Amino acid sequence: MSHVRSRFDKPADEMVIKYTTSLPFDKRLYHEDVRGSIAHARMLAKQGIIPPSDALEIMRGLLEIEIDINDGKFEFKPEMEDIHMAIEARLKEKIGEAAGRLHTARSRNDQVATDLRLYMKDVIIWTLESVRSLQAAFLGLAEKNLDVIVPGYTHLQPAQPVLLAHHFLAYFEMLQRDKERFSDCLNRTDVLPLGSGALAGVAYNIDRAFVARELGFSSVSRNSLDAVSDRDFVVEYLSTASVTMMHLSRLSEEMVIWSGAEFGFIEIDDAYATGSSIMPQKKNPDVAELCRGKTGRVYGHLIGLLTTLKGLPLAYNRDLQEDKEAIFDATDTLLMSLKVVGGMVETIKIRPERMLSSVDRSYLLATDLADYLVKKGETFRNAHGIVGRLVSHSIKEGKTFSELPLDEYLRFSPLFDQDVFKISAMTSIDSRNNPGGTARTRVEEALAEAKTLLAGS
Amino acid sequence: MSHVRSRFDKPADEMVIKYTTSLPFDKRLYHEDVRGSIAHARMLAKQGIIPPSDALEIMRGLLEIEIDINDGKFEFKPEMEDIHMAIEARLKEKIGEAAGRLHTARSRNDQVATDLRLYMKDVIIWTLESVRSLQAAFLGLAEKNLDVIVPGYTHLQPAQPVLLAHHFLAYFEMLQRDKERFSDCLNRTDVLPLGSGALAGVAYNIDRAFVARELGFSSVSRNSLDAVSDRDFVVEYLSTASVTMMHLSRLSEEMVIWSGAEFGFIEIDDAYATGSSIMPQKKNPDVAELCRGKTGRVYGHLIGLLTTLKGLPLAYNRDLQEDKEAIFDATDTLLMSLKVVGGMVETIKIRPERMLSSVDRSYLLATDLADYLVKKGETFRNAHGIVGRLVSHSIKEGKTFSELPLDEYLRFSPLFDQDVFKISAMTSIDSRNNPGGTARTRVEEALAEAKTLLAGS
Amino acid sequence: MSHVRSRFDKPADEMVIKYTTSLPFDKRLYHEDVRGSIAHARMLAKQGIIPPSDALEIMRGLLEIEIDINDGKFEFKPEMEDIHMAIEARLKEKIGEAAGRLHTARSRNDQVATDLRLYMKDVIIWTLESVRSLQAAFLGLAEKNLDVIVPGYTHLQPAQPVLLAHHFLAYFEMLQRDKERFSDCLNRTDVLPLGSGALAGVAYNIDRAFVARELGFSSVSRNSLDAVSDRDFVVEYLSTASVTMMHLSRLSEEMVIWSGAEFGFIEIDDAYATGSSIMPQKKNPDVAELCRGKTGRVYGHLIGLLTTLKGLPLAYNRDLQEDKEAIFDATDTLLMSLKVVGGMVETIKIRPERMLSSVDRSYLLATDLADYLVKKGETFRNAHGIVGRLVSHSIKEGKTFSELPLDEYLRFSPLFDQDVFKISAMTSIDSRNNPGGTARTRVEEALAEAKTLLAGS
Amino acid sequence: MSHVRSRFDKPADEMVIKYTTSLPFDKRLYHEDVRGSIAHARMLAKQGIIPPSDALEIMRGLLEIEIDINDGKFEFKPEMEDIHMAIEARLKEKIGEAAGRLHTARSRNDQVATDLRLYMKDVIIWTLESVRSLQAAFLGLAEKNLDVIVPGYTHLQPAQPVLLAHHFLAYFEMLQRDKERFSDCLNRTDVLPLGSGALAGVAYNIDRAFVARELGFSSVSRNSLDAVSDRDFVVEYLSTASVTMMHLSRLSEEMVIWSGAEFGFIEIDDAYATGSSIMPQKKNPDVAELCRGKTGRVYGHLIGLLTTLKGLPLAYNRDLQEDKEAIFDATDTLLMSLKVVGGMVETIKIRPERMLSSVDRSYLLATDLADYLVKKGETFRNAHGIVGRLVSHSIKEGKTFSELPLDEYLRFSPLFDQDVFKISAMTSIDSRNNPGGTARTRVEEALAEAKTLLAGS
Repeated sequence: MSHVRSRFDKPADEMVIKYTTSLPFDKRLYHEDVRGSIAHARMLAKQGIIPPSDALEIMRGLLEIEIDINDGKFEFKPEMEDIHMAIEARLKEKIGEAAGRLHTARSRNDQVATDLRLYMKDVIIWTLESVRSLQAAFLGLAEKNLDVIVPGYTHLQPAQPVLLAHHFLAYFEMLQRDKERFSDCLNRTDVLPLGSGALAGVAYNIDRAFVARELGFSSVSRNSLDAVSDRDFVVEYLSTASVTMMHLSRLSEEMVIWSGAEFGFIEIDDAYATGSSIMPQKKNPDVAELCRGKTGRVYGHLIGLLTTLKGLPLAYNRDLQEDKEAIFDATDTLLMSLKVVGGMVETIKIRPERMLSSVDRSYLLATDLADYLVKKGETFRNAHGIVGRLVSHSIKEGKTFSELPLDEYLRFSPLFDQDVFKISAMTSIDSRNNPGGTARTRVEEALAEAKTLLAGS
Repeated sequence: MSHVRSRFDKPADEMVIKYTTSLPFDKRLYHEDVRGSIAHARMLAKQGIIPPSDALEIMRGLLEIEIDINDGKFEFKPEMEDIHMAIEARLKEKIGEAAGRLHTARSRNDQVATDLRLYMKDVIIWTLESVRSLQAAFLGLAEKNLDVIVPGYTHLQPAQPVLLAHHFLAYFEMLQRDKERFSDCLNRTDVLPLGSGALAGVAYNIDRAFVARELGFSSVSRNSLDAVSDRDFVVEYLSTASVTMMHLSRLSEEMVIWSGAEFGFIEIDDAYATGSSIMPQKKNPDVAELCRGKTGRVYGHLIGLLTTLKGLPLAYNRDLQEDKEAIFDATDTLLMSLKVVGGMVETIKIRPERMLSSVDRSYLLATDLADYLVKKGETFRNAHGIVGRLVSHSIKEGKTFSELPLDEYLRFSPLFDQDVFKISAMTSIDSRNNPGGTARTRVEEALAEAKTLLAGS
Repeated sequence: MSHVRSRFDKPADEMVIKYTTSLPFDKRLYHEDVRGSIAHARMLAKQGIIPPSDALEIMRGLLEIEIDINDGKFEFKPEMEDIHMAIEARLKEKIGEAAGRLHTARSRNDQVATDLRLYMKDVIIWTLESVRSLQAAFLGLAEKNLDVIVPGYTHLQPAQPVLLAHHFLAYFEMLQRDKERFSDCLNRTDVLPLGSGALAGVAYNIDRAFVARELGFSSVSRNSLDAVSDRDFVVEYLSTASVTMMHLSRLSEEMVIWSGAEFGFIEIDDAYATGSSIMPQKKNPDVAELCRGKTGRVYGHLIGLLTTLKGLPLAYNRDLQEDKEAIFDATDTLLMSLKVVGGMVETIKIRPERMLSSVDRSYLLATDLADYLVKKGETFRNAHGIVGRLVSHSIKEGKTFSELPLDEYLRFSPLFDQDVFKISAMTSIDSRNNPGGTARTRVEEALAEAKTLLAGS
Repeated sequence: MSHVRSRFDKPADEMVIKYTTSLPFDKRLYHEDVRGSIAHARMLAKQGIIPPSDALEIMRGLLEIEIDINDGKFEFKPEMEDIHMAIEARLKEKIGEAAGRLHTARSRNDQVATDLRLYMKDVIIWTLESVRSLQAAFLGLAEKNLDVIVPGYTHLQPAQPVLLAHHFLAYFEMLQRDKERFSDCLNRTDVLPLGSGALAGVAYNIDRAFVARELGFSSVSRNSLDAVSDRDFVVEYLSTASVTMMHLSRLSEEMVIWSGAEFGFIEIDDAYATGSSIMPQKKNPDVAELCRGKTGRVYGHLIGLLTTLKGLPLAYNRDLQEDKEAIFDATDTLLMSLKVVGGMVETIKIRPERMLSSVDRSYLLATDLADYLVKKGETFRNAHGIVGRLVSHSIKEGKTFSELPLDEYLRFSPLFDQDVFKISAMTSIDSRNNPGGTARTRVEEALAEAKTLLAGS
């Protein structure tokens, strides 16, 4: 019978143990648990709460246990409730009675909160690094394709020509915001809860600042009831990860559409595509599809945890245990998605000729015609109407703008002149010469600024 | 290089294989996959599409593979994309070239849909059985506690006295609806997709009705494009499971509140409770808390899959692969929760005296006083007002209704008489003598009806 | 001060009234509230619980109130808590004291549950009719386009040719399942809660079966505690509506992609498209986009209500009030979306030549080539490999299958012969001649079956 | 026919107009729209893009329109697509042709993004102020109740005594984090999108920095494609609001439980409670229940918008229109909830005697007994076991700790001595004398720190 059940007359039901144990998943926190316990033991000794010799034994034992787990030599016994119990029980086998002093001035409530924050701090740093790598991939693509023109879309209808580099830099911007959000989340995660005890603080002369320094936390929590029941930092990570997955889903959707036969704007590298068991000709963009699909998975974890937390009274409730599988799966999914999407993006083959042919086929320069009239004195609203009727006429005639003779233009407005034929995709692009616009010089500036941002992050 | 990649120049990237493989989780469908393949092979032979001798070899090989997996002797190779490929590849090792005929007139798209429906049909049947068991537990509780009175609550404020049996039968009703919903879902799951091919049907003279009979499906799908891309049955299961978990969360909330020191209405059995690592006196209702918490998890799977399915064009898209982990975890969670909650409910210790003392302390009989006045001719609205003022007076005096003398009653209405003192929790309960009401005879009827329902389900 | 506050010393705070009132939205239930109250009053009189003359007055007054509301002459006073109070207060103004008898043997808890079920029953019937109309639109489209061939897609990559009618019939099937689910939901909604009182039943000799007949309910609820706190039927509608919106989102995605310049498979009618304020050439598929976007909205209502219901103890809690705005907005959204999508679908212009050109450009007949080899004795797996290499070769040569000479085929397999050139999109389609397949005769059968289903529903 | 439909042959269908119009809800942005347009017109004139006289006319007209809307004199015509069109059309009526120049160098895509950011910036500032007010209410409560002891709970089981002030300060901390998150969100919202045009920038010599200064934005967006399709700031607000509602739901749950008859720790003020239409004695904590229930509503908006955004290709898609109703309802709900919960909290009546009696009844001092033994040399694990058995013994004997004679203590450990009787709730509390602990001095420090934080925010 577990040693925390001293007031009970019988052990937990087998099924209950299976239902309540967190060991199968929280064993992933073993490294953080050992780190936290070592810092705790060192502090207990420093403060004279336990004998230094016991602290030394405890630390030696914990380090051995960590090595055993690293080496796959640790037996995780199913009857252990969680990683904390599993490690403490093994410690007792190794060093005897002294192990019983480790849990002085601490509860599993503040212990698990500490382990989880240690874990999350590392994960956020890896996430920042992974987002950064994907940004670098977009910068590479943008730089390599500075001369490529692609239709810009709204409503998935060709709208205005843009530089392909400008298109990819839009993703750079999204990811830049994601990094800011993860950084802000890191600041709020970087708070030590240990020392909060079960809920009320502990009745020993502990030194929380010392433990914070040992574990690399910037500050200590200010309220013990809050500290043991706070999972805001997990929700915040899941929210931010949901937005990042949303961004990746937008890119994935484009990769799927662009790599299809009808668009044909890109070809996904063989190493990032998959075949069909029945249709020999198929080359499927499975990475993009799965990334898009996994967006739902991360959203699910977010809403799942928010629901779990709803309406819980203070302080710790066992419901909180549900945080871990959600965050483990979400972080795995996000980190893996960032990496594999990065690989896909870096290896796609751009087909500028397909993009250009789509630019030509559509009436992408209609806004430029309207602006042309405005610059000759027409109001924008009237100019919009004139060009709208011109488009309607051209479609019926089956002609592109460049195939219409000047006298047909003149039937719609006397302001048209020979110089209307100078309007091209490239003049259109270069005319959008404001901060954030698609003009070549602006995109080059943006690229330079992005490089600086990336270097500094 | 996988044999489905014959048109590719290079193998999939390692990371891509890891990201896209479903083998780590869909191996759980091995039994269904073998069943489906055997039925398919038998049909192919019957129809003369493959030689009978090849079909026999295929069936023998598949059965051996199933036994190997059962016995833990099957090596799941990470480079296999999914369970279908893993089994087919092993089959080739076992029986040689003939294995290559198994995938005739079939695609993984209709194969996985078939496997998943076979799995879901079993799961729904287990779910129905598990819900039924929990209903039986509530019936047992109700029957054992037919004499126990408990405050009925609205807004968690004591409202009117009810029989505890009536309270537990409310959960019987919720679960009865859950069973109906799962049964309806079963009907819609019980449709064979095999024969839909990749998306368009297959170019062989197959016999779908034969396969349906072999596998126990009641009908065959009517449109191949729909059949390979339909995951409605998974969403429907997740929705229904979400409602069942919601019901369990309501019960769990009550178990948590009722087992606390202030209420003390029940005591959770030691076998279903957990201790604290720091507070020796604690006896925590962890099973109820975790069940309440896991409600979020199942909701998360529901919204996750709904999100994944949103906006997917026809027909199969790789995003659909995300259905499996969601459904596996949701079914495990639901089945386990039903079982462990059932055990908790069956073993709780009822404390009628604590319930009764709460009945007495509150002004639970106020509605009965109002009804008393109505029956003497007052309108209900006036009677409500009179009793409201009487309650306010009693609280200020610190008296219960039975402690107030008649002349104090008379100050509020001349209709009060000596017989007002006959009103008690028991008369209150027995006066609610309509179908669905809490009167003892009604509850006994409800109990009998519930038993009949349960026996017939 | 509201007459339900007789025990209170002061009125509710202004802000509290604004926060808690449901009148601004539940006034939408006025018709159901009046219907329910009339049936209740009639029953009270029949049972001798209130004088017949009072019942007549009550009914007359209620009918007048309904007419006033219909005519926009009813003043909804903000201090009224809800539609029930607003109507009862007005009734008192109209008929005096007798109004006070209406609320005998009833509580707002069973009253609002009754109103909501009456409302939902109507809404489900409208929903069924609206789904049926959209199915009819798809049938019309399928029938008109029986000769049109379109590429069937998986992973948004051209996969195999199918009849366009087959494609649209896939949506018919989805909607058919939706109707079944709504019908099942209707059965569970069709239960009368009135007579459950606040939570425990009522202390009067009421006749619930009579009220059920009056209001058209098939049965009465079996447990009063459950009946007042059950919102399963709302969740079930929201779940089912979420699946239907998901189906519409899939269609919408296709409409967006197919109407774009690169696909050009369809043209959306001018009456269903929208222009741009700046780009005169734009014709945007806004209806499809909004429908796709509104899918999130309905999902949100589903998860919102599930969250609200999580962990609520029995019986009624005020949280339940949140059900109404969710269901009103979800039903409005769904009904409107079904209607407008139906209009869009009925008026789209199909461009068979664009579809066919996409069929020809891709290697859509690769599966047929593999099946060709299988029928000449090759195993499917080998045939798949041979054709895969043939595709790879053709792409490099820049040739379609029909442009390859026979001797190039023979380099990949000696089984190829002159008859390989007989394979065409049409032979491919007609070879998929199984139930559910895309062969013309099968699609004609499916169309006939669909018509029968539609006529019978 | 709308002037943006110049290329169309017919007007939009009536039903389509109703489905697609945003005017019924986006009219709420009229003030922001006018502000944005004035700044835009002023810039156009400054840059010589439109004549100064036209700009003056435009500004005058816009200000008149704003006043008309303020005064309820503006007719919102249903055929207008949105607030932008409604205002521009009215402007044309007022000032004639010059109105047509306003939309030069701008698109509705960058216009609506600007309006929404202006709105959100104000809302975030109000949110910060509202959170701050609720924090002040908690500080007030904490200060007034510095001497009150309440059981601290884990698992809703009494765990250890804490100061009530410490309990309320836990909510202060949660809200402090919320404020940080809203501030971070404000920084990311404070970016001007105007000048991005439809998607590619604009073809005029505009001055974006000038507009940013006019409108109070700290920076301008860096990529036009991103700027018109970015709704991250709305998602971020909804995520943060969801966490705040989650915090309020935790408090609300406690208010419901604590105000019930069994706990009786607090009494909710009459002005914040509601009566029952049938049970005259009821005093229901409806504000707390509704706030708890509305948590689901805000979660729903979050997941709804995340779903809507999933998988949208660049740049603007009409799906984005769904952002507005979600954010309007979420901000209304959050702001109102913060305010009304603040009022409820400020007026609750604390019942220290009920709290204390609950402290005494439970074995809240068990941890202190264990710590007592540790300080006499026992290991914590052994001490925990000893006290656990002592608790079990006491329950069976029906005695509290203080009722057990010393010799009974000694049967469990020889380390017990007479000084064990000095342990009390107050000594327990004061022994938790670490940063974040519940000791009186620590709580006073925390209170002082909280005041400083509040003053500075």
